Amino acid sequence: MPSSTHKAPTLFAVCLLSMSSLTASALPAFPDAQASNPVALGLMQGFPPAPDKVVNTRNYLQFPQLRWAFSHVRELQATANVSRGEMPVYALPRAERKDIDSLSFMPLGSETPMTWEQSLAANYTDGIVILHRGKVVYERYFGALDEHGQHMAMSVTKSFVGTLGAMLVEEGLLDPDASVTRYVPELKDSGFGNATVRQILDMTTGIRYSENYADPKAEIWEYVRAGNILPRPQGYDGATSLYSFLQKVKPEGQHGQAFAYKTVNSDVLAWIVQRASGQSFAELLQSRIWSKLGAEQDAYLIVDEVGTGFAGGGFNAGLRDMARFGETMRLDGRFNGQQIIPAAVVADIRKGASQSDFAKAGYQTLPNWSYRDMWWVSHNDHGVFAARGIHGQTIYVDPKAEMVIARFASFPVAANAVIDPTSLPAYEAVADLLMKDTD
Amino acid sequence: MPSSTHKAPTLFAVCLLSMSSLTASALPAFPDAQASNPVALGLMQGFPPAPDKVVNTRNYLQFPQLRWAFSHVRELQATANVSRGEMPVYALPRAERKDIDSLSFMPLGSETPMTWEQSLAANYTDGIVILHRGKVVYERYFGALDEHGQHMAMSVTKSFVGTLGAMLVEEGLLDPDASVTRYVPELKDSGFGNATVRQILDMTTGIRYSENYADPKAEIWEYVRAGNILPRPQGYDGATSLYSFLQKVKPEGQHGQAFAYKTVNSDVLAWIVQRASGQSFAELLQSRIWSKLGAEQDAYLIVDEVGTGFAGGGFNAGLRDMARFGETMRLDGRFNGQQIIPAAVVADIRKGASQSDFAKAGYQTLPNWSYRDMWWVSHNDHGVFAARGIHGQTIYVDPKAEMVIARFASFPVAANAVIDPTSLPAYEAVADLLMKDTD
Repeated sequence: MPSSTHKAPTLFAVCLLSMSSLTASALPAFPDAQASNPVALGLMQGFPPAPDKVVNTRNYLQFPQLRWAFSHVRELQATANVSRGEMPVYALPRAERKDIDSLSFMPLGSETPMTWEQSLAANYTDGIVILHRGKVVYERYFGALDEHGQHMAMSVTKSFVGTLGAMLVEEGLLDPDASVTRYVPELKDSGFGNATVRQILDMTTGIRYSENYADPKAEIWEYVRAGNILPRPQGYDGATSLYSFLQKVKPEGQHGQAFAYKTVNSDVLAWIVQRASGQSFAELLQSRIWSKLGAEQDAYLIVDEVGTGFAGGGFNAGLRDMARFGETMRLDGRFNGQQIIPAAVVADIRKGASQSDFAKAGYQTLPNWSYRDMWWVSHNDHGVFAARGIHGQTIYVDPKAEMVIARFASFPVAANAVIDPTSLPAYEAVADLLMKDTD
Repeated sequence: MPSSTHKAPTLFAVCLLSMSSLTASALPAFPDAQASNPVALGLMQGFPPAPDKVVNTRNYLQFPQLRWAFSHVRELQATANVSRGEMPVYALPRAERKDIDSLSFMPLGSETPMTWEQSLAANYTDGIVILHRGKVVYERYFGALDEHGQHMAMSVTKSFVGTLGAMLVEEGLLDPDASVTRYVPELKDSGFGNATVRQILDMTTGIRYSENYADPKAEIWEYVRAGNILPRPQGYDGATSLYSFLQKVKPEGQHGQAFAYKTVNSDVLAWIVQRASGQSFAELLQSRIWSKLGAEQDAYLIVDEVGTGFAGGGFNAGLRDMARFGETMRLDGRFNGQQIIPAAVVADIRKGASQSDFAKAGYQTLPNWSYRDMWWVSHNDHGVFAARGIHGQTIYVDPKAEMVIARFASFPVAANAVIDPTSLPAYEAVADLLMKDTD
C-alpha cells in the first residue's frame, strides 16, 4: 500500500481492503493515535482556523483530518435529525471495573501480547463503552469525541436499515420474496431489477459496483459524488442523488449465489423500506427505534441534495446511545420497558445467513461468519453478532457473556480487516473476564 | 416590485425593502398562506420527491420553496449544534385563552380592521406563541412547522450575538470603546478597521455594503456565496468564507453618525466576541444561554466551510425555546432559577441607542425606535423591545403588558416593513387585552 494513499478518500474502501491480506504490521507508518490527536493538532481550532488546520468536505476523509471530522460530520454536511423523542433518558447503571485496562490478549496473526489499554490507541479509538448485564463496566473517550458528542457510525448504519427492513417483514408490510421492483419500479432496468428483497437484505445481489478507490473509473466515485459525500468536480455530469445513481447500476453475475458487500444494497433497502412504510429512513429510525431507547442525544443522518438519507453509511450518534441499541439487541429487542424490536426479528438476525455464501467473499478475519439483515453474524459459541463500519466503528453483541461493546474510532485505514486483529480478540478477552464475574 | 422577484433570493433584502414604502396592499399577488402550504404542495414529499417538489440550496430562498426550507435548514446546510444541555426542561405553564383569535385590530395604513386569526395567515405564520406572565396563553403552528421542529430565525440571530457581546462588555472581557482591531487585527485594512466595538454593537459603522439584490454587483452576492448560504457558480473567484469576505469590505462615510442595518456588522461582532472569549459563537450561545433555559430542543447554527457560525442570520431553534429566551429578557435576565443574563445587560439593551441616528435609516413602521446591542428598541410607553428577522421572524417583548411573543413565519417577501402593518398593531392589541386580565 503506497504512502500516497494517506491522502486518498477511504470511506468506501472497506470491500477492497477487507478482502486483502493487510495486517496492522504491514501498514505504512501513519502517525500514531497520540501524534494524530486532532485536538492536539489544533484541527478546526481558532476563529477562523488557520488554513492548514481546516477540515472541509474536500479533505475530511483523509488522515488525519478524518480524526476531527468523524466527530463533527454535521458541521460539514446537510443532515436530517433523528430525535431522541420525549421519553426520559434511560440511565445506564454503572459498575466500572479497574481490571480491564491491564487485560492481555494475543492479536490475530501476532505472537506479541497486547493489553486492552494498548489496543485502544492501536485502534485509534475515539470512544468505547462496555456494558455487562446492562451496566457500564468501562467507558473511555479520546481525541475529538466526548460523551456529549456524536460520531459517524459509517456502515453500522446498514444494520439499522437492515433491522428496520426485518421489522417490516415481521409486520407483513414487506415481502422478502417479492421482487425489488414491487416496491421500487424505478429500479426495473438496473442490476437490482430482478433481485428479491431478501437478496438485498443479505447482500447477495450480483451487480457491477466497485469500491476500489484506486480505480478512477470505479462506480464508488460517482456514488459518493451523487450523494454529496464528496464535492463534485467542475464539469461533473454524473448522477446528482443517491437514488438516481442506483438506477444506473448494472448487473454482474447472478443474484443469490454469494455474499458481496456492496454499499448500494443498503440504499436500495432504504428505498424499499421507505416505500413500504411511507416514512423516510430518518423518520422510521426515529419512530421505531431511536425515540424508544431513552437515548441521551438526538442522532442524525447525512442526506443528499433531494433529502434522501444515506443508509449505506450516514448515521451519526452518541456512543452510549449506540450501546443502548446494542443492549436492546442483546435483550431480544426488549429495552427501556418496551418490546422495541420484535424478538422474532432479533432471532432472524442471530440465526444468520449462509456461511458458505459468505465464505466466497474471503474475509480472513471473519471465518465462518455470515451476513443477515445487514448484521455480521459470527456463528461462534457465544452467539456474537455485530454491526460494523469502516475505520473501526462497531456495535458488538455477545449474548453468552451478556456483554455489549460500542466503539467509535478513526483508524487511518478504512478496512476493518486491519483493525480486527487488535479488536476481536480483545473483545473476546473481555467477554471471558466478565463471564468469570460471580456477581 | 416586478413579479420576477418571486424567484429572486430575498434573504438579505431586509435593508432595501424595509426602507421602501411597500405595504401589503402594494405587493404582487403571491399565493396566500393556505395555497402555499408546503405540506399541501407536497414539497419534499415522496422517496425521492418529484423533481418539481425538490427544495435545495439553489431554490430554497425562493417562494414557495422557502415555506418548507425555513423549517428544514439543517437538511440543506452544514450546521453546528447548540445543545440544550442536561438541565430538565423548564415546562412553560399553560393558561390558554379563547378570546385572542377574534381580537380585532387596525393594520397600519389600513382602514379595514383585521382579526388576530386573520393576521396569522396574512403573515404566513409558521408558528406563534404568546406568553403572559410566563404562561402560554396562545400557541399555533402551520405549514411545515410543529412544536418539535426548528425554524430559521434569520436576523433574530443578531440579537443573540448582540446579547453575548453586551454580556462580555459587562464582564469586562470586551471594551466597547476599543477599536475592532484590538480583537481582530485582520480587519485593519477593511472598512471596519477604524470602527469601535460599540459602533459594531449598535450598527453605526460607515461601510460600503449593499444588500440590494436587484444589483448583481451588490456586495450581498459575494457574502452569501462566501458563507455557502447560496451555492457558488462555476468560475466563482470571490471570498470562500464569511471572515475572508469581511476583510474585503470597504469604508463608506463616517462611523458613528447613523444607524445603518448591515448584516456584516453582526459577523464582525461574532468574530470579536469569539476572540475575546476564546469560544466559538455556537459554544458561547450554548454555554451562556441555551443550556440554561431549560430548553426543549437543541438549536443549531449554519456554518461556513471553515466552521464559522453565521451570526448575521444562521440560528435555528424551536419556537417555545425562543419564547423562553424572550421571557428571560422580560425578566431582566433571570429565568429557570438562574440569573442567565446580567440585569445590567438587559437594562443596557432596553435603554436603546440614539433615536435620531436611527431615524436617518427611514424605517416607516418603526418611528422613534433605535437599535442597541443588536436589539430593536421601541422607546414606547410599554418599553417594547424586539429581535427581528426577515420574512417575519420575531421575539417581541412587552414588559408593561408582561407579554412575550415569539413568531416564526415564511412571508413571501423578506422585508418586515411589509409584515409590520399586520403584526405590530396586532401585538399591541393582544397586549391591551392581556392587561385587562385581573388574574
